[in-house]
Amino acid sequence: MTAMRQLVGEVLRARRMSQGLTLRDVSGKARVSLGYISEVERGQKEPSSELLAALASALDVPLSKVLLDVSSLLEVEEAAEAHIASVSSIARGAVSASAA
Amino acid sequence: MTAMRQLVGEVLRARRMSQGLTLRDVSGKARVSLGYISEVERGQKEPSSELLAALASALDVPLSKVLLDVSSLLEVEEAAEAHIASVSSIARGAVSASAA
Repeated sequence: MTAMRQLVGEVLRARRMSQGLTLRDVSGKARVSLGYISEVERGQKEPSSELLAALASALDVPLSKVLLDVSSLLEVEEAAEAHIASVSSIARGAVSASAA
Repeated sequence: MTAMRQLVGEVLRARRMSQGLTLRDVSGKARVSLGYISEVERGQKEPSSELLAALASALDVPLSKVLLDVSSLLEVEEAAEAHIASVSSIARGAVSASAA
């Protein structure tokens, strides 16, 4: 399972790119260091609530929308994991049935 | 604006209570210290992605659903703030019109 912070980073990066903004632009608007934003986007730093709010504001997107996007990505992952677990359980059943 | 971590705490606490679980129950299932969970629920600690995933799992709720609930609460706050900002701007307009 991808850690939530990686999905947060992906969502923030996609928002920034879609607006044609550079890390430097967002760093200036959010008053957060460029290196820190870059680490957050790559899922290497767990951003605090305040930092997330500042980044969302610099990207002109409500924080609720950022979370909604992260939730949607997570939901897809959860569904995929549940599917893999169910397929693997069916496969194990088939293997033990053929071994019996 | 309420910090996101406070809304995360509220959502986790509401989930725990709705299942009739104690902090001790969740602490045992998630293998996270009781004091830490209590601080997270009160919005005093910023939980890491891994901790959030462990708590959601202990509460038998997908992490995507926890985030969706937090997003909904934030959206209500954002709408209320926008409303206050617009009312206050109308009031300022009225005051400067009557002063002119």
